[in-house]
Amino acid sequence: MNKINKVVLAFSGGLDTSVILKWLQDVYQCEVVTFTADIGQGEEIEPARAKAQGFGIKEIYIEDLREEFVREYVFPMFRANTIYEGEYLLGTSIARPLIAKRQIEIAQETGADAVSHGATGKGNDQVRFELGYYALKPNIHVIAPWREWDLTSREKLLEYAKKHGIPIEMKQQTGSPYSMDANLLHISYEGRLLEDPAKEPEESMWRWTVAPEKAPDEPEYLDIEFERGDIVALNQERLSPAVVLAKLNQLGGKHGIGRLDLVENRYVGMKSRGCYETPGGTIMLRAHRAIESITLDREVAHLKDELMPRYAALIYSGYWWSPERKMLQTMIDESQLNVNGWVRVKLYKGNVVVVGRDSKTDSLFDPAVATFEDDRGAYNQADAAGFIKLNALRMRIAAQLRKSFKK
Amino acid sequence: MNKINKVVLAFSGGLDTSVILKWLQDVYQCEVVTFTADIGQGEEIEPARAKAQGFGIKEIYIEDLREEFVREYVFPMFRANTIYEGEYLLGTSIARPLIAKRQIEIAQETGADAVSHGATGKGNDQVRFELGYYALKPNIHVIAPWREWDLTSREKLLEYAKKHGIPIEMKQQTGSPYSMDANLLHISYEGRLLEDPAKEPEESMWRWTVAPEKAPDEPEYLDIEFERGDIVALNQERLSPAVVLAKLNQLGGKHGIGRLDLVENRYVGMKSRGCYETPGGTIMLRAHRAIESITLDREVAHLKDELMPRYAALIYSGYWWSPERKMLQTMIDESQLNVNGWVRVKLYKGNVVVVGRDSKTDSLFDPAVATFEDDRGAYNQADAAGFIKLNALRMRIAAQLRKSFKK
Amino acid sequence: MNKINKVVLAFSGGLDTSVILKWLQDVYQCEVVTFTADIGQGEEIEPARAKAQGFGIKEIYIEDLREEFVREYVFPMFRANTIYEGEYLLGTSIARPLIAKRQIEIAQETGADAVSHGATGKGNDQVRFELGYYALKPNIHVIAPWREWDLTSREKLLEYAKKHGIPIEMKQQTGSPYSMDANLLHISYEGRLLEDPAKEPEESMWRWTVAPEKAPDEPEYLDIEFERGDIVALNQERLSPAVVLAKLNQLGGKHGIGRLDLVENRYVGMKSRGCYETPGGTIMLRAHRAIESITLDREVAHLKDELMPRYAALIYSGYWWSPERKMLQTMIDESQLNVNGWVRVKLYKGNVVVVGRDSKTDSLFDPAVATFEDDRGAYNQADAAGFIKLNALRMRIAAQLRKSFKK
Amino acid sequence: MNKINKVVLAFSGGLDTSVILKWLQDVYQCEVVTFTADIGQGEEIEPARAKAQGFGIKEIYIEDLREEFVREYVFPMFRANTIYEGEYLLGTSIARPLIAKRQIEIAQETGADAVSHGATGKGNDQVRFELGYYALKPNIHVIAPWREWDLTSREKLLEYAKKHGIPIEMKQQTGSPYSMDANLLHISYEGRLLEDPAKEPEESMWRWTVAPEKAPDEPEYLDIEFERGDIVALNQERLSPAVVLAKLNQLGGKHGIGRLDLVENRYVGMKSRGCYETPGGTIMLRAHRAIESITLDREVAHLKDELMPRYAALIYSGYWWSPERKMLQTMIDESQLNVNGWVRVKLYKGNVVVVGRDSKTDSLFDPAVATFEDDRGAYNQADAAGFIKLNALRMRIAAQLRKSFKK
Repeated sequence: MNKINKVVLAFSGGLDTSVILKWLQDVYQCEVVTFTADIGQGEEIEPARAKAQGFGIKEIYIEDLREEFVREYVFPMFRANTIYEGEYLLGTSIARPLIAKRQIEIAQETGADAVSHGATGKGNDQVRFELGYYALKPNIHVIAPWREWDLTSREKLLEYAKKHGIPIEMKQQTGSPYSMDANLLHISYEGRLLEDPAKEPEESMWRWTVAPEKAPDEPEYLDIEFERGDIVALNQERLSPAVVLAKLNQLGGKHGIGRLDLVENRYVGMKSRGCYETPGGTIMLRAHRAIESITLDREVAHLKDELMPRYAALIYSGYWWSPERKMLQTMIDESQLNVNGWVRVKLYKGNVVVVGRDSKTDSLFDPAVATFEDDRGAYNQADAAGFIKLNALRMRIAAQLRKSFKK
Repeated sequence: MNKINKVVLAFSGGLDTSVILKWLQDVYQCEVVTFTADIGQGEEIEPARAKAQGFGIKEIYIEDLREEFVREYVFPMFRANTIYEGEYLLGTSIARPLIAKRQIEIAQETGADAVSHGATGKGNDQVRFELGYYALKPNIHVIAPWREWDLTSREKLLEYAKKHGIPIEMKQQTGSPYSMDANLLHISYEGRLLEDPAKEPEESMWRWTVAPEKAPDEPEYLDIEFERGDIVALNQERLSPAVVLAKLNQLGGKHGIGRLDLVENRYVGMKSRGCYETPGGTIMLRAHRAIESITLDREVAHLKDELMPRYAALIYSGYWWSPERKMLQTMIDESQLNVNGWVRVKLYKGNVVVVGRDSKTDSLFDPAVATFEDDRGAYNQADAAGFIKLNALRMRIAAQLRKSFKK
Repeated sequence: MNKINKVVLAFSGGLDTSVILKWLQDVYQCEVVTFTADIGQGEEIEPARAKAQGFGIKEIYIEDLREEFVREYVFPMFRANTIYEGEYLLGTSIARPLIAKRQIEIAQETGADAVSHGATGKGNDQVRFELGYYALKPNIHVIAPWREWDLTSREKLLEYAKKHGIPIEMKQQTGSPYSMDANLLHISYEGRLLEDPAKEPEESMWRWTVAPEKAPDEPEYLDIEFERGDIVALNQERLSPAVVLAKLNQLGGKHGIGRLDLVENRYVGMKSRGCYETPGGTIMLRAHRAIESITLDREVAHLKDELMPRYAALIYSGYWWSPERKMLQTMIDESQLNVNGWVRVKLYKGNVVVVGRDSKTDSLFDPAVATFEDDRGAYNQADAAGFIKLNALRMRIAAQLRKSFKK
Repeated sequence: MNKINKVVLAFSGGLDTSVILKWLQDVYQCEVVTFTADIGQGEEIEPARAKAQGFGIKEIYIEDLREEFVREYVFPMFRANTIYEGEYLLGTSIARPLIAKRQIEIAQETGADAVSHGATGKGNDQVRFELGYYALKPNIHVIAPWREWDLTSREKLLEYAKKHGIPIEMKQQTGSPYSMDANLLHISYEGRLLEDPAKEPEESMWRWTVAPEKAPDEPEYLDIEFERGDIVALNQERLSPAVVLAKLNQLGGKHGIGRLDLVENRYVGMKSRGCYETPGGTIMLRAHRAIESITLDREVAHLKDELMPRYAALIYSGYWWSPERKMLQTMIDESQLNVNGWVRVKLYKGNVVVVGRDSKTDSLFDPAVATFEDDRGAYNQADAAGFIKLNALRMRIAAQLRKSFKK
């Protein structure tokens, strides 16, 4: 084991990372810097300060990263209409690169030679954290306690906590029925009761959204304004990125929007069942496609669609900081320069229905050409004959040949 | 103008194709063979016989193609989770190749040297019909009346009808407020009142689905069984393809599922607003993704996702009978050999919620590996360290270099 | 026929475009502006002035566009290692967008309402010219004489020339045995003697390169320096883009490099046989791949390779000015920021052999990691076990399942 | 360390695998089955029998796999025109899956519970072997001595050999100046003298090809016949796959064809310099593209080209036995049904020049359409106007909009 002097720990203040903190102090005999961030997980972060102090920590970083999270990570990802495996909006995946980046910056500032996180050895998050660490600081030492220690069960963890005087809350005695993760984009549930993908999750699991059955009987209309592919205003009120997303979460949650129950393919090789609530993201995706539908060139849109699954897999698998993701991002961002305008959606019991879209400056919908009525020469129907003839030519030549040889 | 002896007309029996029939007889002075097919459009086809006879037609083809349509066209397309531009389920696009194929077969049988259709010169359907014709019979003569004649407005069309004694129903006097197309997969609405994409369509337009607001307050559960990627049973009852789709349409329609309002990019170059009802297809797509989620290899699934937009564009643009579509189909079909099992969905006011999926024979979901509990060695967490290290290596080398050069 | 006031003609000064010039004056009764450009075709352009004056032309544009051509078109294309259908370096395709752009600019300057070119109705060039025109000036009127007039054979063309006093050179009496096109990137041959792809072209056809058999018996070494993916120096001498390419053509031609004989797929639908000499381009491509091999990240390189065929097809088919080509270019250019360094090639009787490559600032080749000797810990071989294990996991789970079911 | 009973070793009979054999016996105390295959590496395999017997081995497999290698691995790969990173013909990569498969089959036959190979922990071959093992037999135990033992230098290896009485040849004392690998497709060189990619390799390194400078001064013509994309005859003589490749190697080697010197990206993350001789493969690739040029549909060819880099990366990275490689292969094979005909190439001092190609049954080259002369109506040039107009439409609408807004 290398000698470590100082390690920056992603510290939530909860039981698991408290045990890790203590374990790092004990096993590595090194100084620990704690880093606690508000990325919209919905829990107070300030209490983490006292907890860290309780372990004798001197360098404590507590930061509100919500705006940066949405502006620099969530919004760029949504510019690509990103969905993993046709369903998943990548709520967990997109938060990890930011945490990793801040840990590395703090390591630079504090002269730490290592970083540590609380992700297990079976999941994607360890990959997302560590690929970020290595890409940003190639010689950083990474400590992944769950892959190293012998606290392989909850019982052993609790025992360790008790032994070292780490306070255990009542609910932690039994353990949550799910493994959860939350940030401004989503909350996720995995494991335990969800491990049989044939069984429907319990209604009581969901936390951010009401069931569609419990949602209001009245639909609600919402106007969403985009600039360069990002939402800048809701119902004509300009809002900052994080406020946009918080507001959409509130509206989506109220109307039962954004629940998802799926089996996904982890980067480490197994299938896993996850449930997600992404109320605001679900509205954003729908609205973004709608504004693109009138402002984006056809071939640009199709090229984006073809590259999207790969872009999604890169984010899912932890390659946010890779050169190929950045290269794709350059192209995606370029495509958004004209994505300006507004979309109207109707929210009702789980449904996000697009009911209108327009752009004063960038609509490529040309009513003069598109009309089913007389277009007064905007489009010459005779052109279609040549268009079809030449597009068919290669197939005609082939069919002629096959006929000759009676294939 | 080439001398035409006999033409096979895709004949619905409605006003437009009746005018075309008469116009072909007059202008081309040729024999007309009528072909009328039931592909689930929801109208009786038998009355077309009397109408054709009224024009003195001797060779009249009237056929029920519903099973062939779903088995050979709809199901293969759904194996790829096909969606055009992120939204559209290609209901119109997928029916055209079948019509084109039958017209060509009938031309062979009847010794006709031409085929004709009622699609306009501005839309995608002319392309879909004609690419099919040419691919299947390279020297066929194609007559597209809307691109040739001078009946460029509804008024002129009605006048022509009156002049030639073609009966005009009351509603045809004014014209439908929408241009519609229907088959077992969907019904579509375009034009007229929809030509401003900023405006919500009128509730009265929708014909196949109730509004989610009017759908039952009780959700309904449905078990869907797949074999090789196709649905073979609903609620444990084995059904033929067309019956499956009809049943899903009925259930989806009842629960307000499958409405869509979008602006799409036509192959002929302009943007166009369309509204669609695809109740059964919407359920199928969701369920198919769910069964694939447990039976398909990750990389196979991702490759399918990356190729899907192109496959969708091929179908949308009329290339069903092209060699590249067939080549992709071979690959897609190969991928479905293991897609066997069942999915349970919950239908409720516009929502299709997947609540369970399993496969006795082909589930790649391995609970022993996936579990959040002790997996007794099924997965060695230590492997992840090496996995991450080598995946990070190229990025670390690059970061090291950039550090040296202070980039 | 619309009334045209003034048309900008791409005018080479040769027989064909002279006939077109006269025909435009006669048939359209309009003013003609001639535009003659030196893009490295190897013929004097100044004589075109007198010829145009002979037709009474008042607005005559004669321009040397060689530097712009290489800097803004050839180099950007080579950044992507662009090859069409595995073989063709797109020499003709890449020159058309520049001509089209200048014609449109001149139309703006001179107030012309039309443009005209000398490409036939069967080839790709008409598409390349006209897509450029329309993309840059949507309402421009395009006159394509070969698609309009009745001069459908060489005899008729010569007759028209004689009748209108257009001087015909001796060789033009019989017509060239090939249709040729040249610019600084290549010279092409099509048609006539080449129309049987089973037959080898005559040695006398080739103009820019000696046969490898006639090339020097001594190889020649050449050092090529790149900055941001473009060549900036040869043998340590900094040169402008056009001078680089001219020098490479001279060297390649001397050593018998860059001949190509292929059957290609035209955008208008038929296969066509073409022969090309691209001596400098052949060297550039090889050297560019070599400098990328040490400076480009693996996944960036692979992504470029996957998108290249589409990028090539866009250029081949005339979509240089399309938004999708520009979007891809943004990504390609971004990838070249680190493509700095030098490559040494050996030229010998048709061969371009890369014999060395290095980059002081951007080499990702890390000898400490790559070495077959003891690497003193730069790479931990044990990491490979975990890497393989997790990459294999999904296949192991599948194999386990298949074993259980004896598939 | 798990208890191993019996291990199947890929045994060349050379020093390295002899040491491994002994080491397995000593360290694992298990029975060893040796497997030695002739895949065209150009060394006798029968002597391996005596060597194995010298170690007391009872189960000795010695097999000639040359035909299977070319028929089932090399040919299928060439159907895709497969090249890794624009240059490398994958000679080493394509042989590993066959070795892996036979080892697993032998493990089944002999009841072995483990397999072992002699690849190091830094290269791609370990991955290729082991992904194959795991995909074919998920619970096989893999022993990779180079990742496990402490014989980390040549000195230690020789010492171990001496200590255990393993005979060491003179040349092995000093070690080869290169790490080499050979099979019927290629011979490769890596390491040692090649570790500086700025330096040209010594002429003495190359073993299979003469230098172009030393090749005959007379070119040689060769007729190559294809059926379904595979070569079946040379100069009108039908030959088996392995004989085809051997003959092409002999011809290519004689004419100095197929040398390659490149820096490639290994799957394990670093760049590596390799030199390769692939004389027969270089001819095959060129000829295969030529036969496809007249028999393959344009869009099929383009789709193959777009997917090729990924297919190549799969093979390079060891995923031959993966479901995604098989899925792509299905599509590739399907595309080859019409790839029948012949190609004539001219071999001369490093050059493979295609000089003719034809197909009696499947040529899509239609001289009537392609001709530059009067085509008597086979192609209607007027069609091109409509073709261009509709392809330009979306760009015209966009340009019109930009003009309105003076963008």
